[in-house]
Amino acid sequence: MDKLKKQMDFLMEIDKLKNIFRVSLISDGSRNENDAEHTWHMAMCAIVLEEYAEEGTDMLHCIKMILLHDLVEIYAGDTYCYDVEGLKDKSEREMKAAEKLYSILDKEQESELKRLWLEFENNETKESRFANIVDRVQPVLLNYLSHGETWKGNKITIKQILENRIQPVMNGNPKIAEYIQQILNESVEKGYLLP
Amino acid sequence: MDKLKKQMDFLMEIDKLKNIFRVSLISDGSRNENDAEHTWHMAMCAIVLEEYAEEGTDMLHCIKMILLHDLVEIYAGDTYCYDVEGLKDKSEREMKAAEKLYSILDKEQESELKRLWLEFENNETKESRFANIVDRVQPVLLNYLSHGETWKGNKITIKQILENRIQPVMNGNPKIAEYIQQILNESVEKGYLLP
Repeated sequence: MDKLKKQMDFLMEIDKLKNIFRVSLISDGSRNENDAEHTWHMAMCAIVLEEYAEEGTDMLHCIKMILLHDLVEIYAGDTYCYDVEGLKDKSEREMKAAEKLYSILDKEQESELKRLWLEFENNETKESRFANIVDRVQPVLLNYLSHGETWKGNKITIKQILENRIQPVMNGNPKIAEYIQQILNESVEKGYLLP
Repeated sequence: MDKLKKQMDFLMEIDKLKNIFRVSLISDGSRNENDAEHTWHMAMCAIVLEEYAEEGTDMLHCIKMILLHDLVEIYAGDTYCYDVEGLKDKSEREMKAAEKLYSILDKEQESELKRLWLEFENNETKESRFANIVDRVQPVLLNYLSHGETWKGNKITIKQILENRIQPVMNGNPKIAEYIQQILNESVEKGYLLP
């Protein structure tokens, strides 16, 4: 019962992810998206786009990684991917957050889940590569649907998105990369994104 | 490319789940929870509590089912589990919603995902039984954390929760059932829930 109590305490604590807001707006542009919603949407991307993952990708492993990849932001906060200052100490802040959060669980599960999070961050396995692809695809869809309000507000250019966010992860995924390129070109044409 | 476009259209459409609000409040009681957040939280419950699933449960199958189980509510709306009137035509409304939503995808994926949703609803397989358990556990945690505001507002009794929501799904899960019973007893003691 002691182990189950720790698990339930952990599940209650992580509810706080619903109050961590991102820079992205939801598709109707009415408000910012929070991390819990973003994570669910990413997991749906992984399920629906599963056939584009590298051969031999363990999808359960991948989806577990997705579901917990942002939990550290409960204590470390969300860092905008173009925030140069914020990115400097992001790793350190998130590592401290992981120590605090996962220690609610018993030792075995603590290390299992922390390892999954680090695997996502290191982006070196098939599963983490696919998780990182959907992490980059999902915000493009939202920005496109919300008419690029976030892109415009932060003076983001198509070059920045392609070079910093898309190309580094899209290796070996020409179909998804081509689709994203199309959506971004269209966004420039419509004035949602700077050329 | 045509198939991928359909998949991306589907992923953009389901963003609307973030605007379907439930009766439950999030843990700090500040606002209602939406379906996307609820779904993410349920999936985390499944991951963390995996060891309590029936032997041989295919967790990938189970988590896929969880991730899409509420999508029909995008068109059918959320029906409160104690709303006797709303429950009468819930199945019909949700079936129509499923036809509309999943037809965005190509035939093969449409039938695959629709079948997963029906499996959840029918609650007859190991995977759907575990998915339904976490669907009942998660709101109890939130109601407990938000001091039972929703229970009090709807004059819910511990008997109603146990008989209508917990006992029908907890078969074979004595540990989780015992934990939930404790949380509910404590909720009555604290005045969050009617005896």
